[in-house]
Amino acid sequence: MAVPSITRLPITKVNHTASTQTDDALAIEEPLEIRLEYGAPGKRTVQNISVTMRTPGNDAELALGFLFTEGIIQLQNSVTATDHCFIACAENKENVIQVSLSPDAIPSLRNTGRNFYTTSSCGVCGKGSINAIRTVGTYIDKPDDNSISAAVLHQLPAILNQHQKIFADTGGLHASALFTPWGELLMLREDVGRHNALDKLIGAAINKNWLPLDKHILLLSGRASFELVQKAAMAGITIIAAVGAPSSLAVQLAEEFNITLVGFLRNGRFNIYSAAHRILIPEYEITR
Amino acid sequence: MAVPSITRLPITKVNHTASTQTDDALAIEEPLEIRLEYGAPGKRTVQNISVTMRTPGNDAELALGFLFTEGIIQLQNSVTATDHCFIACAENKENVIQVSLSPDAIPSLRNTGRNFYTTSSCGVCGKGSINAIRTVGTYIDKPDDNSISAAVLHQLPAILNQHQKIFADTGGLHASALFTPWGELLMLREDVGRHNALDKLIGAAINKNWLPLDKHILLLSGRASFELVQKAAMAGITIIAAVGAPSSLAVQLAEEFNITLVGFLRNGRFNIYSAAHRILIPEYEITR
Repeated sequence: MAVPSITRLPITKVNHTASTQTDDALAIEEPLEIRLEYGAPGKRTVQNISVTMRTPGNDAELALGFLFTEGIIQLQNSVTATDHCFIACAENKENVIQVSLSPDAIPSLRNTGRNFYTTSSCGVCGKGSINAIRTVGTYIDKPDDNSISAAVLHQLPAILNQHQKIFADTGGLHASALFTPWGELLMLREDVGRHNALDKLIGAAINKNWLPLDKHILLLSGRASFELVQKAAMAGITIIAAVGAPSSLAVQLAEEFNITLVGFLRNGRFNIYSAAHRILIPEYEITR
Repeated sequence: MAVPSITRLPITKVNHTASTQTDDALAIEEPLEIRLEYGAPGKRTVQNISVTMRTPGNDAELALGFLFTEGIIQLQNSVTATDHCFIACAENKENVIQVSLSPDAIPSLRNTGRNFYTTSSCGVCGKGSINAIRTVGTYIDKPDDNSISAAVLHQLPAILNQHQKIFADTGGLHASALFTPWGELLMLREDVGRHNALDKLIGAAINKNWLPLDKHILLLSGRASFELVQKAAMAGITIIAAVGAPSSLAVQLAEEFNITLVGFLRNGRFNIYSAAHRILIPEYEITR
């Protein structure tokens, strides 16, 4: 809570008739280095895993969510501590976080960072990632009994907007949110990076022992990329709704894992790209 | 040109009164592995540099732009060839690209990927990156005689939109564009990743021998992040205008390098976050 997510800066505001000096709220973007400490007592190792540009706040959730959704740690690899390391330069003490695993936990360090795509069978067509999720992901092929009605789905973006209002004036933050199938907002996380917002959300859900998230709806404030669907799949999410457009590979991955992917959820309409059976549409509204 | 940037998929379109089966255009997202071949004859090395999720098309420009803006190659490191490697799996031959340097060229491989932030003095507060740009960037401290009027600036987003229309129906692509100070569109590149769109643009500009881009205006279709300002700084860009919000670190970096950063350029208004002297505003419009 000590770390702000917003800063104010002097700017010049210009429109067609006037130019004024004022100040404006901006979303803070700072690098966060994620370190992992693991190994048997006396042989503990600390490894730099990643540096991500993020909005400060919920850093422990971000680190936990990232390590989990990238397949580096599993839930049974019990995390014993997650702390900022006060070893960085004086003015930015909050930009290094270290996650410590219990002595018996073995992280999957082959899955780190950009190698994630290249170490497996066919990294350059996404098959590597898909296989990695199949191997590492614990929540594939679980019972499939989640659903949401179109009427509730239409309401979610407005609820998200209402709760994003602390950042409304920066205009610069992505959000990821978890809803119940009856449209109740459970949890919301924001960040300058859309992948960070989702990692924070999943990290928070892990802390609450909510995984797998197969009775929930994930709402993304922007576009649905391959990376976001990949992270959602790791957390067992079965319904993803995005306010923006999905990419081709996002749809392909969603189909592969029987995840319902909704896009362009705004202005009273949406598109279903995969696993449409989980969206309940009153029969009298169906025209073919 | 053989590689499409758009695909069509069957979807279910839903609004409050109807649900219809149709098909929809999606932006293609595929991984691209960038490899670098370098070294003296007989000792040539091929190194994997990065995998980025990109929209196919302009891959050679993307690879060139990426290697340059990340400080891995300099312009005098003459590139002798840039080709797709047909070694990947049969269905995705286009997802590996290899850039070959002349025998005497020495790439700066310390600057690769996410290590970029961590290898230098203070990676975790952005100072590492800033110092890296200062060291590697060739176009810092050049003559400062670029400017654009507010009236022309207001027109740029509409021009961008007009020319983005081939992707208009996917709703899923970021754009980076270069304009003259009198509002003429010189070059436009699009991608599912905003950093890729900018790398493609800068790669294309390198091929045209246009660098430094200090007589141009860079227009970004979305938000201005630290990474985008960093890439722009490497190419000598002095005026950046973004349709979306900037982040705090983007503004900090722009100030550091005397780059004019404009944000929220839409609906007849904009904000100037740094180096306001390059934006010409008629005197009678200034109110303080």
